[in-house]
Amino acid sequence: MTRWLAIVPCAALALGAGPQVGLRDRVRDYRKAHEVDIVSELADLAAIPNLASDAAGIGRNADTIVALLERRGVRARLLRVEGSPPAVYGELKTPGATRTIVVYAHYDGQPVDRTQWTGDPWVPVLRDRPLEQGGREVPRAAWKPPLDPEWRLYARSASDDKAPIVGLLAALDALKAGGVAPSVNVKLFFEGEEEAGSPHMEALLKAQGGLLKADAWLLCDGPVHQTRRMQLYFGARGITDVEATVYGPIRPLHSGHYGNWAPNPAVLLAHLVAGLRDTDGRILIPGFYDDVRGATGTERAALAEAPDADAELRAAFGLAATEGGGARLAERILEPALNVRGLASGAVGSAAANAIPTQATASIDFRLVPDQTPEKIRQRVEAFLAAQGFFVVHDEPDVATRRTRARIVRLQWGPGYPPARTSMDLAVSRAVVRAVEEAVGGAVIRMPTLGGSVPMRLFQDQTGSPIIGLPIVNHDNNQHAANENLRLQNLWDGIEVYAVVLGRLGPLLDAAQR
Amino acid sequence: MTRWLAIVPCAALALGAGPQVGLRDRVRDYRKAHEVDIVSELADLAAIPNLASDAAGIGRNADTIVALLERRGVRARLLRVEGSPPAVYGELKTPGATRTIVVYAHYDGQPVDRTQWTGDPWVPVLRDRPLEQGGREVPRAAWKPPLDPEWRLYARSASDDKAPIVGLLAALDALKAGGVAPSVNVKLFFEGEEEAGSPHMEALLKAQGGLLKADAWLLCDGPVHQTRRMQLYFGARGITDVEATVYGPIRPLHSGHYGNWAPNPAVLLAHLVAGLRDTDGRILIPGFYDDVRGATGTERAALAEAPDADAELRAAFGLAATEGGGARLAERILEPALNVRGLASGAVGSAAANAIPTQATASIDFRLVPDQTPEKIRQRVEAFLAAQGFFVVHDEPDVATRRTRARIVRLQWGPGYPPARTSMDLAVSRAVVRAVEEAVGGAVIRMPTLGGSVPMRLFQDQTGSPIIGLPIVNHDNNQHAANENLRLQNLWDGIEVYAVVLGRLGPLLDAAQR
Repeated sequence: MTRWLAIVPCAALALGAGPQVGLRDRVRDYRKAHEVDIVSELADLAAIPNLASDAAGIGRNADTIVALLERRGVRARLLRVEGSPPAVYGELKTPGATRTIVVYAHYDGQPVDRTQWTGDPWVPVLRDRPLEQGGREVPRAAWKPPLDPEWRLYARSASDDKAPIVGLLAALDALKAGGVAPSVNVKLFFEGEEEAGSPHMEALLKAQGGLLKADAWLLCDGPVHQTRRMQLYFGARGITDVEATVYGPIRPLHSGHYGNWAPNPAVLLAHLVAGLRDTDGRILIPGFYDDVRGATGTERAALAEAPDADAELRAAFGLAATEGGGARLAERILEPALNVRGLASGAVGSAAANAIPTQATASIDFRLVPDQTPEKIRQRVEAFLAAQGFFVVHDEPDVATRRTRARIVRLQWGPGYPPARTSMDLAVSRAVVRAVEEAVGGAVIRMPTLGGSVPMRLFQDQTGSPIIGLPIVNHDNNQHAANENLRLQNLWDGIEVYAVVLGRLGPLLDAAQR
Repeated sequence: MTRWLAIVPCAALALGAGPQVGLRDRVRDYRKAHEVDIVSELADLAAIPNLASDAAGIGRNADTIVALLERRGVRARLLRVEGSPPAVYGELKTPGATRTIVVYAHYDGQPVDRTQWTGDPWVPVLRDRPLEQGGREVPRAAWKPPLDPEWRLYARSASDDKAPIVGLLAALDALKAGGVAPSVNVKLFFEGEEEAGSPHMEALLKAQGGLLKADAWLLCDGPVHQTRRMQLYFGARGITDVEATVYGPIRPLHSGHYGNWAPNPAVLLAHLVAGLRDTDGRILIPGFYDDVRGATGTERAALAEAPDADAELRAAFGLAATEGGGARLAERILEPALNVRGLASGAVGSAAANAIPTQATASIDFRLVPDQTPEKIRQRVEAFLAAQGFFVVHDEPDVATRRTRARIVRLQWGPGYPPARTSMDLAVSRAVVRAVEEAVGGAVIRMPTLGGSVPMRLFQDQTGSPIIGLPIVNHDNNQHAANENLRLQNLWDGIEVYAVVLGRLGPLLDAAQR
């Protein structure tokens, strides 16, 4: 804390002739002079294994981040509740600042399938281009500034979500080097179990009382827009999932001797799934859309301004057409989705036997939008199936049940969480947009929602704070898959955005509220 | 051959006061005196591994069977064509006989999944009751006559289909011991690749010219009725199969970011399958039933007399209801069937990821009835899918195709063969029924068709002979699965039936033609 006292808060600088340009340039100069140090810091952090279930690795990550914060004069400590991995909490008070923001990221990573990786997921490697374009390793001895901004650092969590942590640290360093203090009080909050579904987050937030209440949370997770332009997201779809299993004979039966007499569960499942939604994405469950809140005028305007990368995405994914009658991706994610993530019954291919299978399962995830809830979706799905004559159970049915109930469906629901949406019309929303626009020197893409699910709503409900997503990493980063990577230019851009937001948000928020 | 010369043909015996009862009793007496020898012969034969793909094992089986035949004075040799396993052919001419029958069985067996077996599939074990009822091994030293007829011999092919081979040998021995010659010329024809789909059978039959033409073929394969009563079957359903694969994005996509925009192939597949048939077994493909020939009056009468084991089967299989509006199993197999034997897309259970899968596959087998053909079914399925807007391909579509065709279905058809039906009104059909009825001392169950598929039609087309199925093994034999077994009483009954049919068919056929 003490080391910041002598610095003039940016909020105190005279507004007017583009102080932001001056700030951004100073940050850029700082970064150019420290590229190797910054990438090395990220590589060293990404070298620590970080599965949420690996208590030793998680502990080393948390301790390392605490040390990185303290080295910068940020008062840091670990927060935890019974059974949880530690969350790293750091506090940076700015003298005279009246606003407080929480900056969220997570330091745990997705599980790895080592057979799919080129190299070890926790041995970071800088490559001169993407692997699929023949990228070759740049040995550490050859890391000489200026680093090519198209180089990529390969490692688990290089992108998701350690790059924002290191980017924030570099932004703090750049501000200090430029003699600029943050314009707001900053609370850093780095989770250690996000990729495991944040099972302890609710308890942890409750236990911390008002500690994490703020004028805004910046959720530093997820990728920038597919056009590589910076974007902000003001919501996230909720999620719930269900495994639906229907039953046939208790043992596989010869399909010749018993075919078209013994009921075929794979056919029953096909009808069940086809009854849930059409091939264009429309969900056929009565009442499913009842709680869907329409987009606001501001959201619609923001969408209209957002660039359209659909044609490029269709080509990249090998798609001749899309669901929703060809509506834009950005519009489609304002709607709920029913995704069949798996079907399994009997066997296909060379393992297929001429048998009537004993059961058939569909695994489904639902993406929810305000004001849907997992509880209501569950009720509607179960009521719909019951109305179709299904006997709904939640445990494996015994033989007696199978002998007496013609259509049994077992539904196994996952936990899930509701969607979230922060109004773009809030003063803080407008101020964050303005701050990022100052950083990038132009318009920022404003997305009413992320298509994916992050527990934004949990943060919102537990802290009462508006939550805004501010991602920095490249979209083509193999997030959640093998060969995850971070494109250096994204880290450079992220440092500038973080620094300008921290340096400028205070006065911009004051202005927005006038 | 020579050893049979001194024996009086049964055909020459005076008809009238139940010669058949006399014959059956003599066969039974012979069997009672030789139970251990007969079971030992079967156990020794079942001890020889017999996968069609195992050339060494198949060769040992064939040579062993030739030796078993020659020991009985049957002139035997191996028949083969380029690349085929040998079929065992044996000939037994009866002086004065004007009729010839071919008795068909197969000595190869289904593949084994050793992890599912109790013991080695090719180490035959006699057990004192079924394994699932706690059956314990009866060591060979304890095989003392009379053997308990409920004991079961466990081994691959103990039932399917070596029991008929050993049963026939014992029937020949019993006839000779009783001083009775067969009433017909007998050609024994034991195939070595039935469970592999008989890929060389057509070529082999063509190569043999008229050698296997006969007044009738007796197909000694399959099980007796579920009531344990003897049955004859006069047809078999044909078969063809197809794997249908539909496509989504070329790599799995995050279901949050892209869900309800990127097409979901699992949903498309569900609609495709649901469009092919309803949950009651009715096939919805236009024209699918056009070539279905109705049952004849004799077939209908035979069905009406056949016992109804449906309630027991439903209980055994854990079924509350059956397809076809609850119609009898025996009637249902007169209809074609569309069986979905497998569904696969993405993953279910703990492996499920929140992703849009890249493809989805259904594996389907069709059971056909006269006068359907695999070719016509294929045409109708493809025309139906094309009419639904599918672009039908037979090879893996490339990315360019996927980018330009919104609904691609890849159809991979298996070979398949047509159904067969022998008229119950033929003189030879009536004579075989009469012969079996003499053997069992009562009515035999006459099934117009087997629900399963055997290449009856191939034998019919290539030899021009009527084909009738005469099975002897227990229906609860775990055929095609682990712990295959033969119930001894079924072998005893089979020996009597074979002996009486061989001994009496000649005069009964003469009588039927009068």
